Amino acid sequence: MIKLAVDVMGGDKAPAEILAGAVTFARNNKDTKLILVGIDEAFKDIEIPENCSVVRTEDYLPMDVKPTEALRRKKSTMYTSCRLVKDKEADGVVSAGNTGALLSCATFVVGRIKGIERPTLAVPIPTEKGFSILADAGANIDVKSSVIAQFGIMAVEYAKVMGIENPTVGLLNVGTEQNKGTQREKGAFTLLENIFKEQFLGNIEGNDINKGVVDVIVSDGFAGNVAMKTMEGVAKLISNMIKSEAKKNILGAIGALLMYKTFRNLKKKIDPRMYGGTFFIGVNGVVVKAHGNSDRIAIYNALKVAKNGVKNRLPEKIKEALENVRNSRDSGD
Amino acid sequence: MIKLAVDVMGGDKAPAEILAGAVTFARNNKDTKLILVGIDEAFKDIEIPENCSVVRTEDYLPMDVKPTEALRRKKSTMYTSCRLVKDKEADGVVSAGNTGALLSCATFVVGRIKGIERPTLAVPIPTEKGFSILADAGANIDVKSSVIAQFGIMAVEYAKVMGIENPTVGLLNVGTEQNKGTQREKGAFTLLENIFKEQFLGNIEGNDINKGVVDVIVSDGFAGNVAMKTMEGVAKLISNMIKSEAKKNILGAIGALLMYKTFRNLKKKIDPRMYGGTFFIGVNGVVVKAHGNSDRIAIYNALKVAKNGVKNRLPEKIKEALENVRNSRDSGD
Repeated sequence: MIKLAVDVMGGDKAPAEILAGAVTFARNNKDTKLILVGIDEAFKDIEIPENCSVVRTEDYLPMDVKPTEALRRKKSTMYTSCRLVKDKEADGVVSAGNTGALLSCATFVVGRIKGIERPTLAVPIPTEKGFSILADAGANIDVKSSVIAQFGIMAVEYAKVMGIENPTVGLLNVGTEQNKGTQREKGAFTLLENIFKEQFLGNIEGNDINKGVVDVIVSDGFAGNVAMKTMEGVAKLISNMIKSEAKKNILGAIGALLMYKTFRNLKKKIDPRMYGGTFFIGVNGVVVKAHGNSDRIAIYNALKVAKNGVKNRLPEKIKEALENVRNSRDSGD
Repeated sequence: MIKLAVDVMGGDKAPAEILAGAVTFARNNKDTKLILVGIDEAFKDIEIPENCSVVRTEDYLPMDVKPTEALRRKKSTMYTSCRLVKDKEADGVVSAGNTGALLSCATFVVGRIKGIERPTLAVPIPTEKGFSILADAGANIDVKSSVIAQFGIMAVEYAKVMGIENPTVGLLNVGTEQNKGTQREKGAFTLLENIFKEQFLGNIEGNDINKGVVDVIVSDGFAGNVAMKTMEGVAKLISNMIKSEAKKNILGAIGALLMYKTFRNLKKKIDPRMYGGTFFIGVNGVVVKAHGNSDRIAIYNALKVAKNGVKNRLPEKIKEALENVRNSRDSGD
């Protein structure tokens, strides 16, 4: 049976929406056990399904907590949830709490996979063809070429778990030619080419991301974070512009009404809640960061994603992939 | 009289569309003289307005030319156009040719403003409030903190020329707290704070760009380029999704028809052609890079922008601003 810990107190809408999402998920997934980690008050007036257990603790982290503080407050719901994974009492954890805090707990409580220099925050990005995986989305800035290459190894396994066969890989850069970018990108290009051979399609530019020209986009966390958040901003801008433009003339307003379904489908496709949070991969367990603003739908989807990661043995797959790269290097392949 | 050189041979649609845009601009702007720089054949069957002169040369650069080659081919239309600015025969130049080549010609032929470490590619970005200026958009990657601070000085003058009074400045980063980013961003934060005082609003994130929270966004060219191109990609994705979703149901299709005007206005607002190219600022003259794919409308707007830059004495304003910063530093202000 798959066991997932839920940080009931993490997120802007905690605990009510977190619990609502978790309880519904538990009812619909009898093959999964949820361990709900919260403070005592959170569980008042809540009917707990059979396949849930409750862990009560005294402390929880505010949304603006510092990562170092997160590691000191060992009785927090977030720390406790990660501890359950470390102790093999849970296979994975879902939290909508502070990103930096969760990354610290994942790295230092759950623990890194041996050989992984930096675990990575990998996010699914909507594209013309479906979705791609972007890593790193901001957990690691100013990293070495070898770290970017490892982002690729991890994200490819993630993409496979999400159902993409033989994922292609691209390096986010300022041009498509091989000699583009800083020393970091030039070094990463060579490493990625050696690891992925013809699966590596070379450099891609910002405007290629949403075209879906590659399944996996690797990048230093600075540019990756800027790309991810810029997408969010542009989508918002366009949606607001359509609304205000449509209001300016009656035909536009009627048109917008008729296009209700179109816009709803579009929103669904680019709604981050539907992607159910992002994997923090490279640690010895499945760690899913749900958006800080998560409601019950987002938490439900985050749990779905986490379950999928456990079922498909994502951490083990990464260990194996790392081993394969090491072996092929040692054999001079 | 304002004099602008036009690289007739630069761009995917050169020379026909470049000439068409230039000729129309000349007809509508009798106070401006255009110097059309092209090869002999380009001017066949073209009626040249009175306020245009023609400079014929033998060579022109292909769109995939290397920057170093651009500097060697001194008889190219691009090099010759820049040379006219250097020799004070033109106040500015517009080219839709290769970006790297134009940057090289601008820097080494037109020449840097004294004290400017790196001239910058500054682009107007559509926002909820109108537009903001992003610098650097990809001309300079992996720069020092002091260079980013200079991007701010230059882009602020650009924003003023575009009609923004007391422009506010933000540093593109992976979080809003002061200690975010690499050493480069941390250093740039301190410098920008010293230069701009309360005009500097601190760090901004990718999703703040299109909100228009600041008038000027400064960034290393790597992240700036990724942000700019990602915007283009998302806008394309959403537009394609709307089209294909609308086709799926009859109400959506009718709605889309009724919203024709709405979409047209929206497109106008986010169409890069309407912004008329980007300034390459920090050199001793007005250099405008039009999009490689420019048609006559884009060239017309690029010329409008260039004229505006000359009229408002953008290069001189940057010299003055640089002088002011130097003086205020020397006086220990």
